[in-house]
Amino acid sequence: MWRYIALLTLLALARSEYRYNTKWFTVPLDHFGFATNATFKIKYLECDDYWDMGGGPIFFYTGNEGQIEVFANHTGFMWDIAAEFKAKIVFAEHRYYGASMPFGDKSLDNQHIGYLSSAQALADYAELINYLQKNALKPKYPVIAFGGSYGGMLAAYFRMKYPHVVAGAIAASAPIHMFPDMVPCEVFNRIVTSSYKVANSKCADNIKKSWSFIRSYAASANTSEWLRQNWNLCGPANSTLHADVLVEFLESMYVTMAMVNYPFASDFLMPLPAQPVKVVCQYLNETLKDKELLEGIGKVISVFTNNKKECLNYTEGDNYGNLNASGWDYQACTEMVMPICTTGKNDMFEPSPWNFTQYAEACHKKYNVYPRPNMARLEYGGAMLEAASNIVFSNGLLDPWAAGGILNSVSDSVKAVIIIDAAHHLDLMASNPSDPESVKMARQIHKDNIRKWIDEFNRRMAHRRA
Amino acid sequence: MWRYIALLTLLALARSEYRYNTKWFTVPLDHFGFATNATFKIKYLECDDYWDMGGGPIFFYTGNEGQIEVFANHTGFMWDIAAEFKAKIVFAEHRYYGASMPFGDKSLDNQHIGYLSSAQALADYAELINYLQKNALKPKYPVIAFGGSYGGMLAAYFRMKYPHVVAGAIAASAPIHMFPDMVPCEVFNRIVTSSYKVANSKCADNIKKSWSFIRSYAASANTSEWLRQNWNLCGPANSTLHADVLVEFLESMYVTMAMVNYPFASDFLMPLPAQPVKVVCQYLNETLKDKELLEGIGKVISVFTNNKKECLNYTEGDNYGNLNASGWDYQACTEMVMPICTTGKNDMFEPSPWNFTQYAEACHKKYNVYPRPNMARLEYGGAMLEAASNIVFSNGLLDPWAAGGILNSVSDSVKAVIIIDAAHHLDLMASNPSDPESVKMARQIHKDNIRKWIDEFNRRMAHRRA
Repeated sequence: MWRYIALLTLLALARSEYRYNTKWFTVPLDHFGFATNATFKIKYLECDDYWDMGGGPIFFYTGNEGQIEVFANHTGFMWDIAAEFKAKIVFAEHRYYGASMPFGDKSLDNQHIGYLSSAQALADYAELINYLQKNALKPKYPVIAFGGSYGGMLAAYFRMKYPHVVAGAIAASAPIHMFPDMVPCEVFNRIVTSSYKVANSKCADNIKKSWSFIRSYAASANTSEWLRQNWNLCGPANSTLHADVLVEFLESMYVTMAMVNYPFASDFLMPLPAQPVKVVCQYLNETLKDKELLEGIGKVISVFTNNKKECLNYTEGDNYGNLNASGWDYQACTEMVMPICTTGKNDMFEPSPWNFTQYAEACHKKYNVYPRPNMARLEYGGAMLEAASNIVFSNGLLDPWAAGGILNSVSDSVKAVIIIDAAHHLDLMASNPSDPESVKMARQIHKDNIRKWIDEFNRRMAHRRA
Repeated sequence: MWRYIALLTLLALARSEYRYNTKWFTVPLDHFGFATNATFKIKYLECDDYWDMGGGPIFFYTGNEGQIEVFANHTGFMWDIAAEFKAKIVFAEHRYYGASMPFGDKSLDNQHIGYLSSAQALADYAELINYLQKNALKPKYPVIAFGGSYGGMLAAYFRMKYPHVVAGAIAASAPIHMFPDMVPCEVFNRIVTSSYKVANSKCADNIKKSWSFIRSYAASANTSEWLRQNWNLCGPANSTLHADVLVEFLESMYVTMAMVNYPFASDFLMPLPAQPVKVVCQYLNETLKDKELLEGIGKVISVFTNNKKECLNYTEGDNYGNLNASGWDYQACTEMVMPICTTGKNDMFEPSPWNFTQYAEACHKKYNVYPRPNMARLEYGGAMLEAASNIVFSNGLLDPWAAGGILNSVSDSVKAVIIIDAAHHLDLMASNPSDPESVKMARQIHKDNIRKWIDEFNRRMAHRRA
């Protein structure tokens, strides 16, 4: 079940909706020691079209686990407000993702991947901003960090660790509490389930019932062949092992659709209709069983795969489109240990407990590392955020990642914004006629805070010059 | 001239004046990446004699560049106030110093030394405190960081980077502005000079005049032999090269005595009388020249070497008593780049400009690294400390390191304490009948702040539990 976490970004290749220049910046491979002198280049996207170079802010997206163009094209909020703020826009690519590879196409090999960590990425961003400020000793441009999901965690961490570099951070859907012993592991999938329940009252029940039918269909030759044909599977699902993989595929599918349950059609993770959970639940809106139920699930799969004609290769669970997700799997195996489980009681899934020992052994086998489960909490403060400042944590309550989000304000300057009917970082996307009022309000709050942080920075700098 | 910076701790072997247990704690070699799985043990000293285990604070000394026992024995302030605060006392040894060696006696070899950095040391301390809290998810004990000199920088940085781990920091004589382009390089030696001027009006002038006499004495066989005998030098000083080394030795001597110009006899860096600058200046208190002047300087040397009978091996500039100072030299060659120069105008030294290129090449030759001159400023904020909290920066105005200190309060909770007649972190030393009023007042301010930070921590935790 833990594979879900890799779903933070199942990214489609980006279309280029916005104009920017692609640039490169040299960083040390290791910011915190000197065992190696190696350097490499990270990519960043830059747009100065709206910028007041006399002192306009820098809107800086702390890139997460994927090709940076995808985030540039799906973070319309920054583009929407850039003119109003006369801001420079920068999207920085996270090391070991996209084209920001320290060792070229060998970067993800076990002997090279060890310099992939959030701390190293943040230090990359700090050096890049230092460069963009031109005279970093007298920084002229207030920098606002933006990020969604893991990128939101980075934006918040960036302000915590480098408050001298960033004036404030908008951290959208950042599950910074999603670490061992901080949040019960089942909450994530309870939220997923609740999305399906809300869509219609039978939907989650039907999904829950489906698992045993899938397993029994996989157990005999005739019914498994029917399943293969009805669901257009590329290969048979005629063994317990196959059934396990198929179940895992479906679980991931439901989670993904809950995450991107946006009010408009989107291709953020994959092409999906508006309100995908509602769309698929219409096939599961009465009490179904047996073949009828599985036919319904087949229609759900069709929606998820965008009705494509080719058969479904459900065993390719780790093939995230155009992205090599090894990077995130590695991060999940080192510092980003996020326990997720199912109980089968308060959620619509088969029970699957969180087993750290098993998780750790799998990591060790794959990467020759053992996870450091307390590392993120210790490095970034866990729930002890009282000393932080100028961060907004926004969470949509439809988003399963809200399970690990900050839902209550910590202080006057570390604030929670709840967006009652939004999925995964909807507030960072371009405004859309279908947007609910709640997300419009959240964006207004973001703007108010950004303005406040900019004013504060400018006052401070004026005082320093005086 | 830059060798001065290594003088931060010319440590004598510690006598054991205080009672503590010596313990060991395992830390990862690399906290910020996973290229290595290696771990090693750092040493820490622990005293629970005064501790209220029900919730008394932990006084945590962030060990600097040396054997930790030395700091335990010369930071009497922590011991003096422990009973009053019912505090646990911990002194943590910095990696790559004392016995906290990741690779045993090979640790300082170029192929092993690369994991020596302030960031790694702070992460060691964070993990140690996490362990000492027992239940780090619900920390029970407010932690107060203490440090002097580089240790003071670490205490301040610790609060900045890990405010969830430390409630506040007393950063004594911490030259956190002593980085390139932040402070003019000559200020340090102007302060040294001023100490000698204050001691008596002729003293600095005589020292300033002495350099040319030393060089001319070294230039001829007769006079150089006289110098060797009069100053009890082990070897001759009969060449330009010898003269250079001798001059450098003397410069270091004057700096050291200014740093430890305490009102009582001390063996912190070496055994010295009370007010050593005043003591030595009595030999230079009238206008002297030629042989008379050099005889005076010879008496100064005698004070500095504690009148020992053995000849003076002035060429052993890098031999810091019982310490292997390679660690600090390496740090100075990587992140701790602190420009120090002399002008010969506003100071009593021969002019010696700061030459970064030359400095960098020397580092590269010695350690196969190039310094990263902006690293410390970028990582720890330089002069941009507005977002920090709960730090007291104390500086004695007799201390040359005040050149890089915070002398003005940054905010209500990042405060400067000026100790008008104190040398290098006198406020952290045990109280002494000779203490000036100013240092007594500083210690009272420290206590008030510590109490405030503890109360704040306890209120926050009570609120969390409620």
